[in-house]
Formats: sequence, C-alpha cells, structure tokens
Amino acid sequence: MSADPGTVRPGGRTARVRAAVLRAAGDVLVEEGFDRLDLADVARRAEVGKTTVYRRWGSVTGLVADLLADMAETSSPREETGAVLTDLLANAGLVQRTLADVRQGALFRAVIAAAACDARTAQALRRFYEVRVAEWAPCVEQGVTRGELPVGTDAGAVVRAVSAPLYYEWLTAGVVPDNPAAERAARAAHAAAVAGVYVRTP
Amino acid sequence: MSADPGTVRPGGRTARVRAAVLRAAGDVLVEEGFDRLDLADVARRAEVGKTTVYRRWGSVTGLVADLLADMAETSSPREETGAVLTDLLANAGLVQRTLADVRQGALFRAVIAAAACDARTAQALRRFYEVRVAEWAPCVEQGVTRGELPVGTDAGAVVRAVSAPLYYEWLTAGVVPDNPAAERAARAAHAAAVAGVYVRTP
Repeated sequence: MSADPGTVRPGGRTARVRAAVLRAAGDVLVEEGFDRLDLADVARRAEVGKTTVYRRWGSVTGLVADLLADMAETSSPREETGAVLTDLLANAGLVQRTLADVRQGALFRAVIAAAACDARTAQALRRFYEVRVAEWAPCVEQGVTRGELPVGTDAGAVVRAVSAPLYYEWLTAGVVPDNPAAERAARAAHAAAVAGVYVRTP
Repeated sequence: MSADPGTVRPGGRTARVRAAVLRAAGDVLVEEGFDRLDLADVARRAEVGKTTVYRRWGSVTGLVADLLADMAETSSPREETGAVLTDLLANAGLVQRTLADVRQGALFRAVIAAAACDARTAQALRRFYEVRVAEWAPCVEQGVTRGELPVGTDAGAVVRAVSAPLYYEWLTAGVVPDNPAAERAARAAHAAAVAGVYVRTP
C-alpha cells in the first residue's frame, strides 16, 4: 500500500512506517470498527513487518492512543480573527467539517464507542480533546484581555461548549452537523460566555 | 426472578411479562453490553418462555427499541416552576441524575454505542430523545409567552442545549456530570436563548 501524497511527513523510515501503520489502523476502524482491529492485520495492510508493529505499539489500545495523538498533532491550528465570536465560529466550522467528513466522522464514532468500554482508549480520547481545547483556549483568553468576555472566564469551558451541541446531536440523534448548526453552537457559547456563565467560581 | 416493587405496572400478565423482560434486557446491557444481548438469554433471566419473547419482540433491536420506549414513557414528567430558568435547571438536574446513576448511565452508554452501528437502535434512541424533548419543550414555550424569551425561540433546541454539554463531557471525556455542571448547562442554554440564539430564522 502506498500512502496518499502529503500523508508521509519528513523524518525518514520511522516516520514513514508510523504514517503507513496509522493510516492502516484508521482504515480498519472506519471499515470494520474497533473490535476488528488486529495488529497483524494492520501490519499486513501497511506492508510493515509484524514484529515492528508489535514492538512499537504493543497492543490495539496502544495503536489507537498513537492514532489519536497523531490526529491531535496534525489537526488544524486555531485561527485568530481578532474577535472571540469569529474565532469561535471558526472553531465550530472546524468541528463541523471534522464530524461531517466521512472518514474522520467514522473514525471518531469508532473511537468514542471503544472508549465506552476500554479505559486506555478513553484516556487517549480525553487527551486528544485536551490538546485540541488547549490549542483554541487562547482565543477565549485574548477575548477576556480585549474586554469582550468577563474576567475569570474558563477558556476551556467555552471551547468545549462550542463542540458540545454538535457532538450531542451527532452521537445521540445521528445528525451530521451542518453550517447553521455550527454557527448556532458558536453563537450560543459566546452569548453564555458574555453573560458570565463560564466565570470560574472561587 | 421477581421484579423490584414498583416496576410492575398494572395491566395483568402481559404488563408483568414486559416488565420482567425489559428489566432482564437492561441487566444484560448494563453487565455485558449490546453485543451480548440474546433473546434466549433474556427469556431465561426473565423466567419467561422463549417463544413469547421471540413472538413479541422478534429481535434484539426490537427489544432495545421497546426498552427505550418504556424508558421514555416512565421518565419523570417535566417540572413547572413558573420561570424558564428554574425549569431548565430542573431539567438539567434530571439529566445529570440519569447519567450519574450507575444503572441508567451504563444503559445509555451501551445503547448509544450500539446506535453508532445499528440503524434501528439509532432510530429508537432518536425517538427516545424526541419524546423527552417534547415533554420539556412547553417550559420554553411558556417562557416565550411570559416574555422571558424572544418570540420565535425554537423550544426543542433550547431543551437539547441543556443536555448537550452534559452528554458531551460524559461521552468524550468520561466525566460523570455533577451538580455545578448541570447548573452551568441550564444557565448557558438560558443565556443563549435570552440573547436570541435559538430564534428560528425564516
């Protein structure tokens, strides 16, 4: 299997092996789900030695944890539009596009389902969201500095509030979020933040 | 197996059979997950004839759909406190207690995971939330009538917004919602509704 152009990052053989293995792991998750993920099968699909895969990732949960770490590392960086509302709209758009993307949507669905019954996957998923929230939190912090939001606003809570309705409808009602849903999610989080709902209580 | 006091509703043998079978199905979902749900096993646990279970529910997904219908029917009715904010706080408290309850939390987790890969379960889950949202929507509608929220507010969207952050943190980060999280969820939905975020656009 040859990786798509652009997915092999620099760094020589080790990086190429990682890219091929993570892409194969993602393929299995998307096509067959977490329960069917198997290191030997991933090695075969990635055209990488089985021993290499076992030595480097150790287990299925280790592989999924690395896949999530890679997704966090390679996710789009935050945008800086100069105002917190438009920053949150950009964030909502990114979340919307991720969940609406056929491959990424299926990947997240598989990993979230697996996290429900596997503690290590749950931890890796939590870490993924922590990295993403930390990436976007400065938008809110800058909004506080500029006087757009109350002092003491919990920046992480605001960023999570943007994602919440999009994930909720997607996971419980199977609704793939569209642009109006993304816009409403950002505007709701912004309005609640302006009203002081996310100010940390001492 | 005898059902707990209070779980057997009136209606004679048919209702007793249904209560016993749904309780057994819930037990299997909580203890072993959706993948291990099996009609013969449920019949045995419920001390009900296998033929009765096959004839009445037909399949595992039919059984889960009926379990969700029963959960929707027997869920707590909405509260009417006289103001939309306190109504939403009551709703958030109910959602919080449901997710924090060991049995109900595990049940929802199993069903949401199953809905990710089973269309009929997804439809039953969607129907469950529709029933619950319809139950609570009048709180928002009354708030509009009383002039607490803008005319044209989408009542269902406000009710879903209360649940969203609680489910989001629970499903993606494994955070069991507590009272402050419930209060914040209700206050955020209320503030966004007051700001007009949920007004339907023509």
